[in-house]
Amino acid sequence: MRTAFTEDLERITEQLVEMTRLAGSAIARATTALLDADVTLADTVIAADHDIDRLREDLDVLAVDLLARQNPVATDLRTVVTAMRMSADLERMGDLARHVAKVARLRYPDSAVPADVRATVVQMGQTAERIVAKAGSVIASKDLAEAASLERDDDAMDALHRELFGKLVDGRWEHGTQAAVDVTLVGRYYERFADHAVSVARRVTFLVTGDWDATIDREDEEDAQVASHTGA
Amino acid sequence: MRTAFTEDLERITEQLVEMTRLAGSAIARATTALLDADVTLADTVIAADHDIDRLREDLDVLAVDLLARQNPVATDLRTVVTAMRMSADLERMGDLARHVAKVARLRYPDSAVPADVRATVVQMGQTAERIVAKAGSVIASKDLAEAASLERDDDAMDALHRELFGKLVDGRWEHGTQAAVDVTLVGRYYERFADHAVSVARRVTFLVTGDWDATIDREDEEDAQVASHTGA
Repeated sequence: MRTAFTEDLERITEQLVEMTRLAGSAIARATTALLDADVTLADTVIAADHDIDRLREDLDVLAVDLLARQNPVATDLRTVVTAMRMSADLERMGDLARHVAKVARLRYPDSAVPADVRATVVQMGQTAERIVAKAGSVIASKDLAEAASLERDDDAMDALHRELFGKLVDGRWEHGTQAAVDVTLVGRYYERFADHAVSVARRVTFLVTGDWDATIDREDEEDAQVASHTGA
Repeated sequence: MRTAFTEDLERITEQLVEMTRLAGSAIARATTALLDADVTLADTVIAADHDIDRLREDLDVLAVDLLARQNPVATDLRTVVTAMRMSADLERMGDLARHVAKVARLRYPDSAVPADVRATVVQMGQTAERIVAKAGSVIASKDLAEAASLERDDDAMDALHRELFGKLVDGRWEHGTQAAVDVTLVGRYYERFADHAVSVARRVTFLVTGDWDATIDREDEEDAQVASHTGA
């Protein structure tokens, strides 16, 4: 019994890590598609999202089956429940990458990203890629130092998000409302992508440290931050 | 054993219904705060979000405890797992209502909603209120006809979202970038609020009909819809 449980849990962990890999590939390609107005690349992201969705479905079926067959308790039970929550986070990250790709597709042959916010979007994409790669490492290694460093990447993402909104509302925006709408949405997609990665890392941390209540979904705090730059 | 399980399940159902009530109150107040630039009302929404978060925590602790103690299988197990997913949806709906309230707070004493999109936002708020009330009924009654009618409310929300974006990008927007950013985000908050309510109703439907795989989170489809109105 115990061996079967351990094997199932290892398989679930492997699938979670694979989901981080796919989400990372998706956000990297989506960012490039957005910056280069590359509709072919955007389409690969949109098509590949089904793979992440399918991994989530497989993982959830396996987890429910494991709960029924093995009746885990205490830490084992929490590990399985937490894995299901992490798969939900990772599936959502795939959706958000797809949303970025769709904005790229929508504006083709133009780029949705005006030149004066391009550098910020490049950095948001890089930060997103880094944070999801770290989330994969944290799932595999349960390395709490890496989990903590991921929080700093999220702070960097928050700062980039503030910078982006600052450029939208500083009174010098010359690219019209359509571009403002696109940049607003893209900024939110990256911000939420990072939030979900932080959720994943925190869930691992709290499983290791035993502070179970704190695994509740992360409040996204970007509004307060955006506020500080867009407030009157 | 069986009786204790049934009692626990009833308590979980009651808590889910209570969460829909709180989320409904939150979005109604947030909409009024937004339209009236009422910062006091906005603050009540922001403060009350903790109550929804706490209900979610209580519910998840109860659900995990129930899994450990009762080892439910088959339909009972799926019911408990689904309840945890519904609580995640409802907690997120509370967050989204809080986000709307924060936009109201941010623009005070001004209104974040220009007059020419006011009627659309009024209807988005009403649709959000209706859809979460129906989600509560569906949880309590498992009425699949009501679950189906909720999908039509979501279609109405999608149409309103398209209308809102249409007004942003039809070339006649005269309210500047700040207002465009606010309206873009507010529109997305209402749209996502409705998506999560649809997720709740679908989870109930699939529990009743037994199509378990389909309880996977709903893909939000608003991007394609927005696309049709904002595309070149």
